[in-house]
Amino acid sequence: MTSAHPRVGIVMGSDSDWPIMSEAGSVLSQLGIAWEATVASAHRTPARARAWAEAAQRKGYAAIIVGAGAAAHLGGVIAAEVNIPVIGVPIDATPLNGLDALLSIVQMPGGIPVACMAVGKAGARNAGVFAAQIIATADRAVADRLARYRAEMVAEVEQKAQALEARIAKGE
Amino acid sequence: MTSAHPRVGIVMGSDSDWPIMSEAGSVLSQLGIAWEATVASAHRTPARARAWAEAAQRKGYAAIIVGAGAAAHLGGVIAAEVNIPVIGVPIDATPLNGLDALLSIVQMPGGIPVACMAVGKAGARNAGVFAAQIIATADRAVADRLARYRAEMVAEVEQKAQALEARIAKGE
Amino acid sequence: MTSAHPRVGIVMGSDSDWPIMSEAGSVLSQLGIAWEATVASAHRTPARARAWAEAAQRKGYAAIIVGAGAAAHLGGVIAAEVNIPVIGVPIDATPLNGLDALLSIVQMPGGIPVACMAVGKAGARNAGVFAAQIIATADRAVADRLARYRAEMVAEVEQKAQALEARIAKGE
Amino acid sequence: MTSAHPRVGIVMGSDSDWPIMSEAGSVLSQLGIAWEATVASAHRTPARARAWAEAAQRKGYAAIIVGAGAAAHLGGVIAAEVNIPVIGVPIDATPLNGLDALLSIVQMPGGIPVACMAVGKAGARNAGVFAAQIIATADRAVADRLARYRAEMVAEVEQKAQALEARIAKGE
Amino acid sequence: MTSAHPRVGIVMGSDSDWPIMSEAGSVLSQLGIAWEATVASAHRTPARARAWAEAAQRKGYAAIIVGAGAAAHLGGVIAAEVNIPVIGVPIDATPLNGLDALLSIVQMPGGIPVACMAVGKAGARNAGVFAAQIIATADRAVADRLARYRAEMVAEVEQKAQALEARIAKGE
Amino acid sequence: MTSAHPRVGIVMGSDSDWPIMSEAGSVLSQLGIAWEATVASAHRTPARARAWAEAAQRKGYAAIIVGAGAAAHLGGVIAAEVNIPVIGVPIDATPLNGLDALLSIVQMPGGIPVACMAVGKAGARNAGVFAAQIIATADRAVADRLARYRAEMVAEVEQKAQALEARIAKGE
Amino acid sequence: MTSAHPRVGIVMGSDSDWPIMSEAGSVLSQLGIAWEATVASAHRTPARARAWAEAAQRKGYAAIIVGAGAAAHLGGVIAAEVNIPVIGVPIDATPLNGLDALLSIVQMPGGIPVACMAVGKAGARNAGVFAAQIIATADRAVADRLARYRAEMVAEVEQKAQALEARIAKGE
Amino acid sequence: MTSAHPRVGIVMGSDSDWPIMSEAGSVLSQLGIAWEATVASAHRTPARARAWAEAAQRKGYAAIIVGAGAAAHLGGVIAAEVNIPVIGVPIDATPLNGLDALLSIVQMPGGIPVACMAVGKAGARNAGVFAAQIIATADRAVADRLARYRAEMVAEVEQKAQALEARIAKGE
Repeated sequence: MTSAHPRVGIVMGSDSDWPIMSEAGSVLSQLGIAWEATVASAHRTPARARAWAEAAQRKGYAAIIVGAGAAAHLGGVIAAEVNIPVIGVPIDATPLNGLDALLSIVQMPGGIPVACMAVGKAGARNAGVFAAQIIATADRAVADRLARYRAEMVAEVEQKAQALEARIAKGE
Repeated sequence: MTSAHPRVGIVMGSDSDWPIMSEAGSVLSQLGIAWEATVASAHRTPARARAWAEAAQRKGYAAIIVGAGAAAHLGGVIAAEVNIPVIGVPIDATPLNGLDALLSIVQMPGGIPVACMAVGKAGARNAGVFAAQIIATADRAVADRLARYRAEMVAEVEQKAQALEARIAKGE
Repeated sequence: MTSAHPRVGIVMGSDSDWPIMSEAGSVLSQLGIAWEATVASAHRTPARARAWAEAAQRKGYAAIIVGAGAAAHLGGVIAAEVNIPVIGVPIDATPLNGLDALLSIVQMPGGIPVACMAVGKAGARNAGVFAAQIIATADRAVADRLARYRAEMVAEVEQKAQALEARIAKGE
Repeated sequence: MTSAHPRVGIVMGSDSDWPIMSEAGSVLSQLGIAWEATVASAHRTPARARAWAEAAQRKGYAAIIVGAGAAAHLGGVIAAEVNIPVIGVPIDATPLNGLDALLSIVQMPGGIPVACMAVGKAGARNAGVFAAQIIATADRAVADRLARYRAEMVAEVEQKAQALEARIAKGE
Repeated sequence: MTSAHPRVGIVMGSDSDWPIMSEAGSVLSQLGIAWEATVASAHRTPARARAWAEAAQRKGYAAIIVGAGAAAHLGGVIAAEVNIPVIGVPIDATPLNGLDALLSIVQMPGGIPVACMAVGKAGARNAGVFAAQIIATADRAVADRLARYRAEMVAEVEQKAQALEARIAKGE
Repeated sequence: MTSAHPRVGIVMGSDSDWPIMSEAGSVLSQLGIAWEATVASAHRTPARARAWAEAAQRKGYAAIIVGAGAAAHLGGVIAAEVNIPVIGVPIDATPLNGLDALLSIVQMPGGIPVACMAVGKAGARNAGVFAAQIIATADRAVADRLARYRAEMVAEVEQKAQALEARIAKGE
Repeated sequence: MTSAHPRVGIVMGSDSDWPIMSEAGSVLSQLGIAWEATVASAHRTPARARAWAEAAQRKGYAAIIVGAGAAAHLGGVIAAEVNIPVIGVPIDATPLNGLDALLSIVQMPGGIPVACMAVGKAGARNAGVFAAQIIATADRAVADRLARYRAEMVAEVEQKAQALEARIAKGE
Repeated sequence: MTSAHPRVGIVMGSDSDWPIMSEAGSVLSQLGIAWEATVASAHRTPARARAWAEAAQRKGYAAIIVGAGAAAHLGGVIAAEVNIPVIGVPIDATPLNGLDALLSIVQMPGGIPVACMAVGKAGARNAGVFAAQIIATADRAVADRLARYRAEMVAEVEQKAQALEARIAKGE
């Protein structure tokens, strides 16, 4: 999963975000895209975050995925240092249900975008898919795998639909 | 700007969104990226939206930018039809201040991402920058122009800082 | 329940919505109205959602009930394809407590309505009652059953009131 | 517009709601459906509201449209008295931007539905369309007019799209 | 507690509200004020709610306490029928955390007030205290008991403060 | 209006609140209830606020009406010092639309109630009506005037309803 | 911990806030700053709160930390009495998730600041750090301990990062 | 005002924030505290923001005041680099009314505090007062000026109260 030439870097503000952010890594692996992941805090370890961003630029990642909760500045701090697409995943880590992280990520001012996904696991999974879509703009193999991934989603929904219809028919 | 081979498609739910969404076109033009734009409503003209999405996939856009207000489904409807990165811009078009459009765009369920930008003009501008960052992953010329664009932002902030410091020094 | 000529179609974005949406089916059955239900995702299976909508129009359902969570586009996507009344039920499926689904359903732009019910089980139950009220505009038998259903609600509230008064009188 | 046999009744909490609620009347007239409208306050004139509801039931309206702002109880109060479909339109009438009216209308408890539309003019217009869709379930002429209404919306979007594309082509 | 001449009436939309609303009864009993309580739904049993309100007016209650969740119309519906002070308690009964009930109660339009308390148990308790304060404007015995009630609160806070200080001093 | 023996005291956090709070005074005057009003800030002039509260208790006001915006603590600060019913009016005085003042007033903890009215003018007017309802529990003359006040509201709504119906009949 | 000359006073509205607020004391102790803590309610024991504030001013605390939930007025009430920096910690103590306490603390009107921290434990911890930063402006020993505290945070994040990277490398 | 040895540094994300942030400078000047102000964007000019923070630490400011709107990361980014108290002022700069900036500033994770003030002008003014309170912990002259500043506020409120009472007495 963290092979020689990762094309996507995942960074999160705290190791407690990993159960959510691992969804992103898992999708990337399914789509055959090497990635690596680490922890860096925009506030507690700003130098580490910056060094990570500079390394990301040097390594030529096609996309960066950032997960953070609360006043989730990590995405903005990374995006300020690189010209690589940065994808942000708000984590529901405080009593405010992730609304704090969502607004801290999505409301980036003009000039420095962070592409915001949904709060939590669905967002982390979609960050992986979106990174793959970026890579697929210049990599047909990934584009093909994405197409298959989507076809499998269609099949899965159809199976679930049939299973539900069957349960209802039985009056369950 | 809308030259022979546009690389980014902009679509919006209503022509009243253009004063906001034109920011995206304007940034893309500054960065030397050809684009085209049109109107299609997910709800009033679903067939048109779908046809536009299918054409977008055929034309091989590197990114799609979607602006919509209220129950802003257009981004999701387009994203459901293509495997191209879709960038959504929530428009503040109802009494709810754009919170409706923001949640309708950002909270996409797992599997089909839409990359959400900030509500309104800042978001539209950033959609253009983000599309350019996607293109730059495989196009060094765009990457160079993005680097210059950012350097100009730095210079602009520094000029404004000096102007403000001067005004304060004069006691204005 | 899913007899030969269903008059109401229930569709939901995920089979995990069924524990909520089954309330709608349950009320319809109580009111003697045949229905059928399935799963279709606006985003993962747009063609399936569209095909379902077209079939719904052909079958002449009197009403369609749609349950969805997160960026709940399914109601809008179905409503865009049919001229049948579409009733939406927001599902509380993300950390944002269903506010995302609520705004995604209720804030439909002018021209294509979705009739939004409350978030969760109360909304699903009311979707069933509302579909029955639509049918009752042209079906006296259903109107009579609705009148009885309401009379039973009155009786139930009165019994509960007496039980509570009795408990209080006993100092419980 | 308020001909001999109105099929839809419009009621609002205050005459200051009419500039919004007239959208509903206007759509109904376009669709050839007779309607009548008045003012009744759930709180200031509860007897009037009740009498209106009882008359509505007697007159056999196919649908009732209720507009109200603030703690918008009128929809619930009317729905409690009739077994006719009640459609609610939240009005943005306080500093809270219509969120108060929206939640007061949409969050109806199980058993007595009110079908909630969007806040403001889009919601009022859609209330008219939705009432027509209810009528159309048993009136082919209205169904045909609804189909034409939608076709005109499609044409209108397409014209606006062409106009915008032309403006962009001219570099405006 | 529900002695011959109750001076406060408590009514709630559902018997499931009693674990919250019993706080109001409990405070009233502590303050030596007779009360009675029942269930009536503004939507399911409007006639019952109205009859209860009319009886309340006849019985000459000094205050009415109303608890309700979701689209909490019961307070407004009662207040529309009486000229007795009505105190509303929003119940957290839906996924929206009681914000729906709060706005449905507090945002009453000009002319017909409902005095809104906090969401949940604190609000129910305060409804009891507030009803006692109303009665105390013309009943010195109740005023004296209220003064004692407050003095006991002061003593309780002081005891808890000392207990906490002691725990901290011990390094717990 | 501020005659020899005022029975209601109005206090507000800033003189800029008077255009809103004058609604309360105006209703009280209509209902023949003497009142007085002043400014005291819970934060800038806590001693003044306290002295005012102590005087209010001595003077034997039947009710206190408090208007405040932002972190609206004045109601709680006054309520902490008296055993008179305190009615709070949230003022929309910051970019947060009065939601800050509303929650600061309504969410009082158990033991010390503040009766919260709607945000802004409707709330100020209702504070006056509610104070009158408190007085009316022991003053038949005020009760009679309240009954007339309500009858006039009914007549006013009916007149407006007729005027609107007439305008619609003329096709305006 | 509560040594002879405490430099920071911690006060909270209820002893149930201590599991949150103890984080502040704990950080202060780690940084070698003596503190004391108690309970005082702005509403139930206003005289106690005031007396505590006056004592705080006399004792010359360098900072005051206030924790409160619901309509969290305690910070404002203390700040109104002293000219010492007051730091507020919103507690999530009601169904509204701490949004009520947050707005009640942060939205202080011009003239009397309360420095608001995050809702809950992170806020309580940061209140301790912030108080230490205030002390450190004139106390080099505390400044040095703060620098070490931060260095330890950096080390901790780096260790967690390595541990996570190792887990991922093992495919856990 | 921006004399040789400023003790407070003000920094803001954009020169468009100055009309708000000048309130902070203005209060500091009134209190005889030298300050300087500039513009630095956390996202557009991260190196400038960092350099400014490092200089601030070297210059030994007693406090830093940071104003920012939207995803307001500047406060966190500065706080991550210094061990000086950082005070944040949320600016209402987007359609979301400053809620985005508020949550981005106040919800700082454990370890790195930013002291959040109210949204907008009141917050900027209070940032100045709070910085003065920090300085006053070790500077009696500033403490004395703060005491006078507060006394003037008391006098101002009292004058306004008398003026309002006079207007009311005249029936204005």
